[in-house]
Amino acid sequence: MSDLPSEADLAEMTGAAPPAADVVLCECVARDGLQHESAIIPAAAKIALIERIADIGFRRIEISSFSHPKHVPQFADAEAVLKGVRRRPGVLFKATCPNPQAVERARAAQDGGWGPEEISLLVSASEGHTQKNLRRSRVEQWANVAAMAALGRDRFTMVGTISVAFDCPFDGPIAPQRVLEDAERFAALGVTRIALGDTIGSATPPRVRDLIGWLHGALPTATFIAHFHDSRGTGIANTLAAIEAGLTHADCALGGTGGHPARIAYGEGFTGNTCTEDLVLALEAMGYRTGLDLVALRAAGEAVEALLGRTLYSKSLRMG
Amino acid sequence: MSDLPSEADLAEMTGAAPPAADVVLCECVARDGLQHESAIIPAAAKIALIERIADIGFRRIEISSFSHPKHVPQFADAEAVLKGVRRRPGVLFKATCPNPQAVERARAAQDGGWGPEEISLLVSASEGHTQKNLRRSRVEQWANVAAMAALGRDRFTMVGTISVAFDCPFDGPIAPQRVLEDAERFAALGVTRIALGDTIGSATPPRVRDLIGWLHGALPTATFIAHFHDSRGTGIANTLAAIEAGLTHADCALGGTGGHPARIAYGEGFTGNTCTEDLVLALEAMGYRTGLDLVALRAAGEAVEALLGRTLYSKSLRMG
Repeated sequence: MSDLPSEADLAEMTGAAPPAADVVLCECVARDGLQHESAIIPAAAKIALIERIADIGFRRIEISSFSHPKHVPQFADAEAVLKGVRRRPGVLFKATCPNPQAVERARAAQDGGWGPEEISLLVSASEGHTQKNLRRSRVEQWANVAAMAALGRDRFTMVGTISVAFDCPFDGPIAPQRVLEDAERFAALGVTRIALGDTIGSATPPRVRDLIGWLHGALPTATFIAHFHDSRGTGIANTLAAIEAGLTHADCALGGTGGHPARIAYGEGFTGNTCTEDLVLALEAMGYRTGLDLVALRAAGEAVEALLGRTLYSKSLRMG
Repeated sequence: MSDLPSEADLAEMTGAAPPAADVVLCECVARDGLQHESAIIPAAAKIALIERIADIGFRRIEISSFSHPKHVPQFADAEAVLKGVRRRPGVLFKATCPNPQAVERARAAQDGGWGPEEISLLVSASEGHTQKNLRRSRVEQWANVAAMAALGRDRFTMVGTISVAFDCPFDGPIAPQRVLEDAERFAALGVTRIALGDTIGSATPPRVRDLIGWLHGALPTATFIAHFHDSRGTGIANTLAAIEAGLTHADCALGGTGGHPARIAYGEGFTGNTCTEDLVLALEAMGYRTGLDLVALRAAGEAVEALLGRTLYSKSLRMG
């Protein structure tokens, strides 16, 4: 019954960063979650969603992609969304960059005062997935990433994403050593935040622990980010295993939205992200502070379902 | 390219038990999964479902409940279902028994040559849940269980289920010591298969490991069974944690069906079982043998969705 302001009140009053967290979750619904939605969501709705996500207390938010509008029409409004979102102390907005032109757009946005704080660059750990998903070889994609990193270095916090870090739908299981090699290449380019993408959702908790052991042992200065998909129902299990193994960062998406469509030949295409609403409840129950407002989180989950016009994959939202 | 018959062929030819398994899963859709369905499923459809489940290779199958038909009309056909299902070597059918009259029905069925091999007896670890769910005190329920165990002993393999083994929606967290006490009471009554029920789906992997450590250390002769609900999306995470902590038995239900309805005041009532289709894929990926036919399993998941007329909760079924 103290009259002292709470940590959250203080942050509000002083414009300070969100409250402390043991685990930093990056909310990905606005990019990974929407990328393959057939309906184009208007920029105003995206902005409102991102403001709502920031209000919950997320300090890393995937906001859009600088993909070519012809390839990914959902994000033709990347600049409008970036311009429209209010900046807040301690909150990092991340935009996906598939090529050097995209990083140029991120730089132009930054020059305008409304750029993303983070950009993400992608490789696939396998040759087969690189060919099918990016339509080039791994050698070519690493050259592409090097060009992007040169443009982004000293301007953005760069996140390197390693896709198919566990299994490739074309080439089979990926050795942890291969993922470590890719992480080391990223680090050599100045990219020390590295997302481990379980693109087809085939990881298991023991493999997660094994991979993280390899990475932490060999590259202790990097920050690894758990990025799991729930295609087989193991997104929560794998993300919790990653956090218990020592990671402090994970990606997730409200409603378990997102993933790749059937045409990339991952089966029938359901590969949503780990569901934020359920992951946060589990982490908090395990004693990890996420720094998030659980009431606002639930309301945001409901808002995403309303926005997309269908029931999504959160279990806890159904529980009442 | 050997002409020798496979292990499964041999089992078929000789009428032997199903192939070896590291983890024995009890498929619960026919009882826990259907209990709160509003539509009454005809006995013939239940029998067809159970035969299909046995064909997959499950060696423990929850088949029905000897509840009073007035309270649980779904299982008014318990005798018809038990009579209708073909017995197979090495496959145990389990029926739920809420009171001594139910055990008398199980005994009568056994006398007729079509009884269940297992019966399950229930307690709640908390006073509050016992009062709300069973409408009596824990002292009264333990007296009820003792009467049932006396009738069932030497006739059936008895499974003792401890509900709310982690948290009670009325009394809060349950100490592992309380669960151990209940397990010891069951053991004293001759019940050495003990299911740990996470009734409201609030457990987390560290608590699962902690509880199992207590139980294995203090009661090494008992067989504990993981029985998790997916109300918060952690059913797979908790079941895998239990298996990794050393349990060899777990319960699950096709489609993640089942749970308790809103009127028992668990929130809004969604508390389905851990989804069989997804759990089996995860266990097999972790190198555990489940002894199950994965193609037949998938077809059974689709059959349950057709039977209930709606999409259920398996993620892997959506993946194609």
